[in-house]
Amino acid sequence: MDKNILNEIKKIEKEVGTLSNAQKILLTTDGSVTTILDVIRGHVKIETLEQKFIEADEEMARLLDVDVGDEVNYRVVVIQTQEPLIYAVSLIPIKRLEKDFKEDLIRADVPIGRILRKHNIESRREIQSVYFEEKSPELKEIFKEDSIMLARTYSIIHKDEILIWLMETFPYTNFRD
Amino acid sequence: MDKNILNEIKKIEKEVGTLSNAQKILLTTDGSVTTILDVIRGHVKIETLEQKFIEADEEMARLLDVDVGDEVNYRVVVIQTQEPLIYAVSLIPIKRLEKDFKEDLIRADVPIGRILRKHNIESRREIQSVYFEEKSPELKEIFKEDSIMLARTYSIIHKDEILIWLMETFPYTNFRD
Repeated sequence: MDKNILNEIKKIEKEVGTLSNAQKILLTTDGSVTTILDVIRGHVKIETLEQKFIEADEEMARLLDVDVGDEVNYRVVVIQTQEPLIYAVSLIPIKRLEKDFKEDLIRADVPIGRILRKHNIESRREIQSVYFEEKSPELKEIFKEDSIMLARTYSIIHKDEILIWLMETFPYTNFRD
Repeated sequence: MDKNILNEIKKIEKEVGTLSNAQKILLTTDGSVTTILDVIRGHVKIETLEQKFIEADEEMARLLDVDVGDEVNYRVVVIQTQEPLIYAVSLIPIKRLEKDFKEDLIRADVPIGRILRKHNIESRREIQSVYFEEKSPELKEIFKEDSIMLARTYSIIHKDEILIWLMETFPYTNFRD
């Protein structure tokens, strides 16, 4: 694994506290997070908090390697069982989507990992950063508690282009055992 | 996740004992196992116990979707830190390998997950089975203990063809916390 990512994990453990194996894996895996949650927490669902089509601003254009103004699907979801597990934001450049995939995505409420599997999409995942931060008021409301949030950003790459950019975050108190 | 795989996990928990989150994840993930081990156990190495080029027999031909007699790389390794973590057998049909990839593979002692990353290979992983079994004398010798082995088989698919077939197995006493 990328040494920088391992160092970021060590930094979190020093400044926030020890991480469980599940937390470390969720922050660094290049596999499907949905699959992991299904097996450690039971079948997960997603609740879509926001989904819209927007024009890429400069930061999004940089993250996705598209032009400013290109159409992007912006989606905010909570992955959950009976309780919220992970809050995730995704950015998807529409021009890179095949038609069927696009339809599944817009129908919403299906985790991206399951959509990729359904369409037998071959891809690779590149972890960009792992970090921690204070909870925003929105996240306090969703998770109903006050601990530090652990987070990561990564890209899912398909045909040598960024298909999806993701930020996933969960409270330090989740996945402790 | 595939319901059959989840049922196999439940069956193991009923017949062998509860599994830790790390064990469940290692048995079902579609991500790199090397990456997971690097973060939960520290940088792992592999020791190659056996590596040879053979002609596919009927079972290998079926597992790899190649013809009987096609050339196959057969590799047996132990993924380890100071201690043995996972024993793995891989089958790779040579005709599907690009040249650089083949060279890295033959040089041995590099985990397949790292080779895939180095070459930016886009792929998907299909879990075929998850199960448990008694230790063979060889595995008793390697792991120096006597508990049940947890195991899985899966394929790494690239360009719609099976690039690698894998069996991974580890003692029930590994990855308990």
